Amino acid sequence: MKKISDSRRQFLGVAATIPFWIPRSIKGYTSKQMQSFNLDGKIVDDISKWDLDTPALCVELDALERNLEHLQQTVSRNGIDSRPHAKTHKCPAIARLQMETGSIGICTAKVSEAEVMFEHGIDQILITTPNVTPVKIKRAMHLSKWCSGLIQATDSLTNARDLSAAAAAAGVVADVVVDVDPGGHRTGISPGEPALILGQEVDRLPGLNLLGILCYDGGSQHVKGFEKRRTQTLERLAAASDTILTFQRSGLNTEIFSGGGTGTYNIDHETSHFTDVQVGSYLFMDAQYRAIGGSSDPEVYTDFEPSLTILTTVVNDQYQGRATTDAGAKACTINKPWSIVKGETGMNYRSGSDEFGTITYDNPSRTYRVGDKLELIVSHCDPVVNLYDQMYAIRNDRVEAIWKIEARGMSN
Amino acid sequence: MKKISDSRRQFLGVAATIPFWIPRSIKGYTSKQMQSFNLDGKIVDDISKWDLDTPALCVELDALERNLEHLQQTVSRNGIDSRPHAKTHKCPAIARLQMETGSIGICTAKVSEAEVMFEHGIDQILITTPNVTPVKIKRAMHLSKWCSGLIQATDSLTNARDLSAAAAAAGVVADVVVDVDPGGHRTGISPGEPALILGQEVDRLPGLNLLGILCYDGGSQHVKGFEKRRTQTLERLAAASDTILTFQRSGLNTEIFSGGGTGTYNIDHETSHFTDVQVGSYLFMDAQYRAIGGSSDPEVYTDFEPSLTILTTVVNDQYQGRATTDAGAKACTINKPWSIVKGETGMNYRSGSDEFGTITYDNPSRTYRVGDKLELIVSHCDPVVNLYDQMYAIRNDRVEAIWKIEARGMSN
Repeated sequence: MKKISDSRRQFLGVAATIPFWIPRSIKGYTSKQMQSFNLDGKIVDDISKWDLDTPALCVELDALERNLEHLQQTVSRNGIDSRPHAKTHKCPAIARLQMETGSIGICTAKVSEAEVMFEHGIDQILITTPNVTPVKIKRAMHLSKWCSGLIQATDSLTNARDLSAAAAAAGVVADVVVDVDPGGHRTGISPGEPALILGQEVDRLPGLNLLGILCYDGGSQHVKGFEKRRTQTLERLAAASDTILTFQRSGLNTEIFSGGGTGTYNIDHETSHFTDVQVGSYLFMDAQYRAIGGSSDPEVYTDFEPSLTILTTVVNDQYQGRATTDAGAKACTINKPWSIVKGETGMNYRSGSDEFGTITYDNPSRTYRVGDKLELIVSHCDPVVNLYDQMYAIRNDRVEAIWKIEARGMSN
Repeated sequence: MKKISDSRRQFLGVAATIPFWIPRSIKGYTSKQMQSFNLDGKIVDDISKWDLDTPALCVELDALERNLEHLQQTVSRNGIDSRPHAKTHKCPAIARLQMETGSIGICTAKVSEAEVMFEHGIDQILITTPNVTPVKIKRAMHLSKWCSGLIQATDSLTNARDLSAAAAAAGVVADVVVDVDPGGHRTGISPGEPALILGQEVDRLPGLNLLGILCYDGGSQHVKGFEKRRTQTLERLAAASDTILTFQRSGLNTEIFSGGGTGTYNIDHETSHFTDVQVGSYLFMDAQYRAIGGSSDPEVYTDFEPSLTILTTVVNDQYQGRATTDAGAKACTINKPWSIVKGETGMNYRSGSDEFGTITYDNPSRTYRVGDKLELIVSHCDPVVNLYDQMYAIRNDRVEAIWKIEARGMSN
């Protein structure tokens, strides 16, 4: 290597002027090896985060715990409850943490997620999506037989009747909330008279027990700027709020008015009769939520701390102004804004390539060599978590536990 | 329901003018139920695709088999081989089909994928990504000890020396190809002198056996228009072609010059010394590849047939001009162009929402009611497959087998 000619040096560009990378004495563990260390969810050896094989999904426990605490303190102060959405983490270990720190239950988007959570000891579950096929209705009502804290959303008269028949066949009276559309027309029945008629029908049907309504305004969660977000949220929840008043006047049960999320957790309580927030991303945060701004900082949403990262390794440093990593779209998704390199400035990360991530430099705080590891703040936490079978729970850079993402891929 | 007032009818919009949906006598099976029917990879009961619980990933066997045959016939006629990339399907059952129909081996992007494929009986495997960390190098060289047909790509002198040391420690001489950069600067060493010096070093190192080069030009695969694609591909492969000529003149082994993909499978053979194509998407096709146009149709790439679909169910039909399904970003990814509703016209599908898909109508060939199932031609097959634990192999609308996607999520 000492005989490198000038022409070759020129050909290689900047890389030739930097000494070749010498492997550090990191050990590195594969997922399989890590599993063998993992007894009852606790690691028996003392393993550094930086020794993990990559890409690896990591959650910083101190930050996660502060996020749990801040959420719970805020909603308690505002006189409402939290019913966090497990679609974000798909992880029974985290659902247990949420229940232990004061949440009244969890939400799931899919009946399969609810089945997994119940199998792992969670017994207060609101399925927020109406189940419409015979098989899914049967599964939900079968689960209701075993999980007394199951609540099922419904958004049509036909569906309510199907649910009631399936509940009767399973020998249960199923708890139900009416899913009210906040205006996005995605799921839910229209507020006002249609919702009231459905509520009355649910109340009447022998297999069902009406608990109230659900109104999830996904479209308001990422509105940039606290005041703009607050105004839109309260406007769009007004019809649902009027609906629950008509429920009350009609003598229907109004003990649940569930909705909201991480972007509106400190706004939703201003809506009359609102009972609990379906926060999800508050646990992890992500680049999408960071960008919405908060009440204290108009540019950055600092209410919760980023706790979820992807650990990745640089696999190529040979070309000027860039480096290639082992975390592409299959490890990061292609959501925008792109993942953020944690703790560094002057560089951008893109995961547009299936297998590889690209770092481009623009007055960077550091550059990377082959074999270097770095952490990424994820772009959009929900679909990222859905790519991994496990996450490493980290404290002070040591692996404290491996949490199985038991409901990963459960979209049915 | 007979007492609907005019005002309510108006409130509900178009939906109120259509009779309510009556459940059909479909049975429906959950994934768990399907598994219980599945003995030795074959279904013992006679189950319709339309009874599957959704979202479900399905592959049409007749189309898949025609794609396999067309590819193999074409490359044979052009005097080259196929070495399909298993990063696309991550499925040993499909790798076996590829080997049985004439492929000389498979490629994998990650060492974890190679481990899985070898565990399932595939023994001709080219790992196309240089492994750079001590743990990955050790894993690859350990695999080489058991899998005599393993070939590892390398793109730097340091990496080659690390590989050689690890091979010696494992007691093997490992087969290696030099990864040459086609100009994208993602991975690979620069063609010409740098690649030659690396080839000579690999040839010299006691633990390694040089087989030739690899040059994957991902950037040319989706160039729209056959002639434009052909021109760019041949231009960008020229430096790698020159490189393999210098290998030959220097007495180095040139038995492998691997590269190319589904967009260039009928172009790459025009490059001197080119030996085999790393096709992946040809099996399944997708909306991205459909749009690149082919030699016979400038708008639609008809060389291969779409065989991979996502089966999804309509969960809401209450709002005019649209319907909501149960297949969102977690079931479809957010790649563009969006998934295509198979067999229908005048409607668009979007999976921008994590849990829900949105159909919007624009002079549609049909409309959907709650509970209806439909099939989507996937947007970009690789990351879609990576979301599912299994795919249903379908012939004449019946489930013929369930194929485990054993390397799903194996990004490390």
